[in-house]
Amino acid sequence: MAHALRLARRGLGNVWPNPAVGCVLIRDAHVVGRGWTQPGGRPHAERMALDQAGEASRGATAYVTLEPCAHHGRTPPCAEALIKAGVSRVFSAMTDPDPRVSGRGHTMLQEAGVAVQAGLREREARALQCGFLSRVNRGRPWLTLKLAASFDGRIATASGESQWITGPRARAHVHALRLSHDAVMVGGGTARADRPSLNVRGFGPVRQPVRLIVSTQPLPDLPAEGPDYGPIWQLSGDPGAFMADLAARGVTRVLCEGGGVLAAALLRAGLVDELVGYTAGLVMGADARPSVGPMTVAALADAPRFRLIESRRIGGDLMHRWRATDQTATSAAP
Amino acid sequence: MAHALRLARRGLGNVWPNPAVGCVLIRDAHVVGRGWTQPGGRPHAERMALDQAGEASRGATAYVTLEPCAHHGRTPPCAEALIKAGVSRVFSAMTDPDPRVSGRGHTMLQEAGVAVQAGLREREARALQCGFLSRVNRGRPWLTLKLAASFDGRIATASGESQWITGPRARAHVHALRLSHDAVMVGGGTARADRPSLNVRGFGPVRQPVRLIVSTQPLPDLPAEGPDYGPIWQLSGDPGAFMADLAARGVTRVLCEGGGVLAAALLRAGLVDELVGYTAGLVMGADARPSVGPMTVAALADAPRFRLIESRRIGGDLMHRWRATDQTATSAAP
Repeated sequence: MAHALRLARRGLGNVWPNPAVGCVLIRDAHVVGRGWTQPGGRPHAERMALDQAGEASRGATAYVTLEPCAHHGRTPPCAEALIKAGVSRVFSAMTDPDPRVSGRGHTMLQEAGVAVQAGLREREARALQCGFLSRVNRGRPWLTLKLAASFDGRIATASGESQWITGPRARAHVHALRLSHDAVMVGGGTARADRPSLNVRGFGPVRQPVRLIVSTQPLPDLPAEGPDYGPIWQLSGDPGAFMADLAARGVTRVLCEGGGVLAAALLRAGLVDELVGYTAGLVMGADARPSVGPMTVAALADAPRFRLIESRRIGGDLMHRWRATDQTATSAAP
Repeated sequence: MAHALRLARRGLGNVWPNPAVGCVLIRDAHVVGRGWTQPGGRPHAERMALDQAGEASRGATAYVTLEPCAHHGRTPPCAEALIKAGVSRVFSAMTDPDPRVSGRGHTMLQEAGVAVQAGLREREARALQCGFLSRVNRGRPWLTLKLAASFDGRIATASGESQWITGPRARAHVHALRLSHDAVMVGGGTARADRPSLNVRGFGPVRQPVRLIVSTQPLPDLPAEGPDYGPIWQLSGDPGAFMADLAARGVTRVLCEGGGVLAAALLRAGLVDELVGYTAGLVMGADARPSVGPMTVAALADAPRFRLIESRRIGGDLMHRWRATDQTATSAAP
C-alpha cells in the first residue's frame, strides 16, 4: 500500500476532477501490475495495473488507495474490471466519499467472492486525498498559500523589486508545488505588476494548472493557453463563493501565490488549509512590502493558527509547511 | 579536544571580559582533570583541571581550547602552571589574539620542554570564541538579534498584544540564549511598553546578563540589580559607538531582543552577526506590529544578507539561526 500511495501521488494536480489513485497488483510475492490515475483522470489506476498484469492478474491481490468505482461513467466500473480479471483479494485504503460509490465498490467485489479489506493506511490515503475530499465533503478545493519572503516577512522592496528574494532551488521547488495543484491563483495587483507565468517549468510536458486571477478589473496581457500555459479563469467577489464555484467546476487543489491583499482575504475567511513559507536570509524592513495585507486581527486569540508539519533547507532558503488547526480544515485530512 | 570545547561552552555568557576556555588532562588514556573558565573569569580552565588532577598531571597531556596565558594578571600565568605541574604535552586549538599572549604562551611551554601542537579543531574553537574574538579583533561585541514573530513577521497586534506569540518551549529556549550572552539589549520603547525582565530563569543561580536599554529618555521602573537581575546600563546615540563602548567595558556577546526600531538600526549599521528567529504558526496581517522597523532598503542588493546555519522545531514553533555573510562579521568566526 505504501507503494500504491507513492504511485497515487504522481496524479496530484493532473487528474482533476478525479481523485489521484494508485494501484499495485501482487501475485506470488511479485509485483505484476502498477497503475495510477492518468492525466485528465482516465484510465483509472486499476485499469492501468490490470492491463499491465494481463493474465497474471488472475488470483492476484490488489492494493488500491481508494475504493474501486462501482458506477458506469465514461468507462466500465473498476470493481467490475477487478472481478473480471480474476483478482482474488483487494486491500483498499479508504471508502470513496463520492455518493455514486460510497461503499458500493467494496460491496460489488465482496458479492463476487473477492476478499476485501478496507482502511489499510487510511490516514495517509486521506492526507493524500485532501483535495478530492475537500471538494466532495466541504464543497471547496483544498487551498495552499505559498509565501516566499525575507526573514522579516517582506516580499518586495518599497519600490516593488522582488526578483529574486529566494534562490533558484527554492524557485524550482515552487514549480513542483504548482505541479501538484490543479490551479494556481494570484491577485489582480500581482498579475498586473509581476506578469507571473503561473505555469510549471522543468518537469517535461505536463498538464498545466489553471491560472486563476482574482480581480474585478480587466486582466493584463498574459500568454495564451497552450502546451506551456493553462487556461485563465478570472474570479472576483466573496472568496467563499468563488472557492465553491471552483469546486463545482471540479477543481480539487488550489495554490495561491499572493499578493498580500488576496492572502489576507483568504486567511480572514478561514479558507487557507496549508501555508508554505520560503524564508530567505535577508532583512528588508517595515517599509518594504508585506507578505500578508491588513487583517484587522484585534486579539492574538483571533489570529488564524497553523501547526508545523515540515521544515527543511532548500538551497540557501528555509522551507516550512504549516497545516490549519481549525476543525473545518482538518476534517478533510485527519 | 571535542570534550574540551564542550566544557568551554559552559562559560559563554558567564566569564566576560575573559574568553570561555575548556581544558582536559589525559594520562594513560584516562581523563585525570577537567576544567572550564569559572564565572567571572577565574579560576582559568587550566588551573581548575590541574587542581582536579593533582599529582596525576605529571606526564599528562593537556587539551586546551585557547592558548594558555603567559602574563601575570590576578593569578600566575597558566603556561607556568602547566609547566610546574609537569604536563608533558599540550594540544591547543588556537593562538590567543590578546596582545599580552599572542603566541607567548605556546613559546613559554616549548622553552620549558613541553611538546606543543596548536590549531587542533581551530575552526570550532574560533566559532565558539566569536564574542571574545569580536571584542579583541573588531573592538565590538558579537551581536545576536533574536526575533520571535508570526509566520508573516509580526511581533504584536496593532493594539500591542504580544503575550504569547511563541510557545513555552521556545520561550525557555530564549532563556538558554540569554544565559550564553553577557548582556541582553532592548530599545526604550519595548522597555517601557513590555517591562521585559531581561533575566535568565530556569537554570538555577547564574551570573545574570547586563540589561542594556537603548534610549535617550528616562528609563521605566525595572527590578533592581540582584541575584535574579543583572545591572542596568543605559545606552544611546550611534549604534557603532555604543557597541565600541560595550567592548571597552569587556562585553563580548550581546543578545538584542528588539523592538523593531532598534533591530532596524542595528541591521542598517551592519552590526548584526547572527539572527535567531522563532516563527509561530499564526498570521497577524500587515496592520500588526512588524518585527523590524523601516530600513529604507532601496534595492534587494542593498539588504543585509545572512546564511542559514540551523533550523529545528521547538515545541510548536520553528527556530532558525542565520549568520551574517559579510566579511567583517565572518572574519571573527570563519
